Amino acid sequence: MARVLTPRAEDFPRWYQDLIAKAQMADNGPVRGTMVIRPAAYAIWERMQAAMDARIKEAEAQNAYFPLFIPESYLSREAQHVEGFSPELAVVTHAGGKELAEPIVVRPTSETIFGEFMAKWIDSYRDLPLLLNQWANVVRWELRPRTFLRTTEFLWQEGHTAHATEADARDYARRILHSVYEDFMVNLLAIPVVPGRKTKGERFAGATNTMTLEAMMGDGKALQMGTSHELGQNFAKAFDITYTSQAGTVEHAWTTSWGSTTRMIGGLIMVHGDDSGLRLPPLLAPIQAQIMVVKAGEGVTEAAVKLRDELKAAGVRVKLDDRADIPFGRRAVDAELQGIPVRIEVGPRDLAAGNAVVARRIDGTKSPVALADVVTEVTGALKTDQQRLLDSALALRQERTVDVETLGDAIEAAQTGWARVPWSAVGTDGEAEANGKAVTVRCL
Amino acid sequence: MARVLTPRAEDFPRWYQDLIAKAQMADNGPVRGTMVIRPAAYAIWERMQAAMDARIKEAEAQNAYFPLFIPESYLSREAQHVEGFSPELAVVTHAGGKELAEPIVVRPTSETIFGEFMAKWIDSYRDLPLLLNQWANVVRWELRPRTFLRTTEFLWQEGHTAHATEADARDYARRILHSVYEDFMVNLLAIPVVPGRKTKGERFAGATNTMTLEAMMGDGKALQMGTSHELGQNFAKAFDITYTSQAGTVEHAWTTSWGSTTRMIGGLIMVHGDDSGLRLPPLLAPIQAQIMVVKAGEGVTEAAVKLRDELKAAGVRVKLDDRADIPFGRRAVDAELQGIPVRIEVGPRDLAAGNAVVARRIDGTKSPVALADVVTEVTGALKTDQQRLLDSALALRQERTVDVETLGDAIEAAQTGWARVPWSAVGTDGEAEANGKAVTVRCL
Ligand SMILES: [Zn+2]
Ligand SMILES: [Zn+2]
Repeated sequence: MARVLTPRAEDFPRWYQDLIAKAQMADNGPVRGTMVIRPAAYAIWERMQAAMDARIKEAEAQNAYFPLFIPESYLSREAQHVEGFSPELAVVTHAGGKELAEPIVVRPTSETIFGEFMAKWIDSYRDLPLLLNQWANVVRWELRPRTFLRTTEFLWQEGHTAHATEADARDYARRILHSVYEDFMVNLLAIPVVPGRKTKGERFAGATNTMTLEAMMGDGKALQMGTSHELGQNFAKAFDITYTSQAGTVEHAWTTSWGSTTRMIGGLIMVHGDDSGLRLPPLLAPIQAQIMVVKAGEGVTEAAVKLRDELKAAGVRVKLDDRADIPFGRRAVDAELQGIPVRIEVGPRDLAAGNAVVARRIDGTKSPVALADVVTEVTGALKTDQQRLLDSALALRQERTVDVETLGDAIEAAQTGWARVPWSAVGTDGEAEANGKAVTVRCL
Repeated sequence: MARVLTPRAEDFPRWYQDLIAKAQMADNGPVRGTMVIRPAAYAIWERMQAAMDARIKEAEAQNAYFPLFIPESYLSREAQHVEGFSPELAVVTHAGGKELAEPIVVRPTSETIFGEFMAKWIDSYRDLPLLLNQWANVVRWELRPRTFLRTTEFLWQEGHTAHATEADARDYARRILHSVYEDFMVNLLAIPVVPGRKTKGERFAGATNTMTLEAMMGDGKALQMGTSHELGQNFAKAFDITYTSQAGTVEHAWTTSWGSTTRMIGGLIMVHGDDSGLRLPPLLAPIQAQIMVVKAGEGVTEAAVKLRDELKAAGVRVKLDDRADIPFGRRAVDAELQGIPVRIEVGPRDLAAGNAVVARRIDGTKSPVALADVVTEVTGALKTDQQRLLDSALALRQERTVDVETLGDAIEAAQTGWARVPWSAVGTDGEAEANGKAVTVRCL
């Protein structure tokens, strides 16, 4: 078969861009760093959203929607926050045909505007905790964009909560990290993320503690898959989020924020993709099984339709590809590129023997299966291969992570994977030295 | 009971704003005309989205996501389009700490950017029709904002499709109008919309035909609930959306666009609301039944929990309100404000008689029901009251619509409702005259 993508071993970043283009996942937008998310990738994002949203609701947060436009003055109220975000802001100066009296910022994140309204809505301890989340687009001007990973505009969910005590805020930020993000990433994305804390230098602008989930990509590098922040009383003081306690005193609340983005699509590609394209975890895949009419023939379409209906009845997300006028080889390459977990090929020859061919994208096997056994075979494969993807990502991470004792060894090991090193051997000075060599301290 | 809202008969616009504030549906945002959609209203929007999205997928359109930021030059390519939208644009002139070479427009709608990419993606007649939709926020600078109805930023879905022939584009624009919008509005929102065409003066900027669904509000005025446009070849020519036909010739495609917005939440309030608050159609309601512990007492909570579990098992979206420390009267007023279709009140006295009280928001009835009959009673009420809301909206519309023969009579009738008048008696001059008297020709 002709080579479809630049092999990963040859040029990993190029392979990544090739895959996104060939699998029709995204295009670059006309404004620097923006992207068009095409249906193949957007369907993945919809499934990510649904699974995350269910977990967020399970954690008792309620969805809301706050404005895209934030007065520039809001950002300045929290000193570290404005310093962190200023270089990335997009600013509206004209609207309705006139110059604006105060410039408007296109939200890079929404701590400030949530803070403003939390202050209005919270009176007493009875109003706490206040647990909010929104699904939205945000803008951070990006000088070195990479599709899904670093884009000027991206889609995300951002949670914002207010609590009566530091302990409650801390517990909730942890709960989101583990029961929403980690659970989703491990069990749906089949990505074995490592939870931990960021160093002071890598913290979110305005946070007192940033917790992260880091995943190892196919090239041994790390990607931050989601973060959950304790904001202490920084935003509560800047926006005057106070409540009357049970004892009658007026107290500042403790707030958190947490986010995960379309970057997860990039992580998914880089963890599970291979030289033939994406491999989607079956539980996530918008299409789990694609039935393909290999070529027209006696009873072929009828058999394909029957299998489609049986699989649908068994709860499998199935699609029928009966475009017999397009060469089968090309359609098979496309299905591999898109990462559809199982293909069921129905053609005259196998059909004559009472079989269809079941091709599994994740382990690459392909074998004839009696028509009557297809449903059992496919549902079994979907279950097995979900676990297989997680296992192989875990094996790669273990293989490429070494325990070292010194900063020098850590920097060397980071050329091909991850190094686990005692923080006492690094420290803030060591972190600066490592950063100078393009090595980052990902998590504590 | 104390008066909660300004009565509709006294001041309908004020009643509307009161309801939105008291039911905690939305707040005004800090930037002119923006709004914060609070959880009570956002939950309604989520249910609207889910029901619409299923119908859009049924109509074979695929979801995608296009950038918020559009180069200013794109809008100028279609002459009527730029003329229509220029006065409402918000413009980004600075980003990443620098002044931009070309100003960026925050999308007021996305025909232009969809057009640009459709031109790239379409080669041959085999690529048609191309049926896309996106859920997104858009910005149109609003000088006279009204929550949900006219806001500077709003949420919506916008569909964009390209077809090989004018007839196919026309059929699809009609299909969306009827099988997505009208079906959703009548059967879920219980709003008897009237489909029709807009006059040339009221058409979407760049369309050759705009179809609309108009609904009558509680004050007899009309609200546009959704529109579907035929764009002819205007955008195909401006963005060079061409395809190679089966005969081998290169042809311009025919495009459509169609949208519905968070304005539907405003319509819902104004059609079904009464002087006690919102009344939600049961099929739409995020919470269909609320079980309320009237006050603490022997076995009360246990009985309430049991009813909750039984209703849940029967497929009812149910919530338990056991906040016995908050006065029951206040909680009941809140439930009425929010429009929850059924309340089930569980208190010691009724419980001693083996009953709960079922209060129906839509017809205002309240009666004791044996515990064993509650599930049947509630599921029956939800079905009956969905129809009841539709019937009463229909009755109002019929009562307030008169058939007239002259423009003068039409203008007079429009003071209290709608007038149906032959277009031959109006014409373009008559339309201008009516507009001068604050009367609009809504649909043909
Ligand atoms: Zn304060
Ligand atoms: Zn052209």
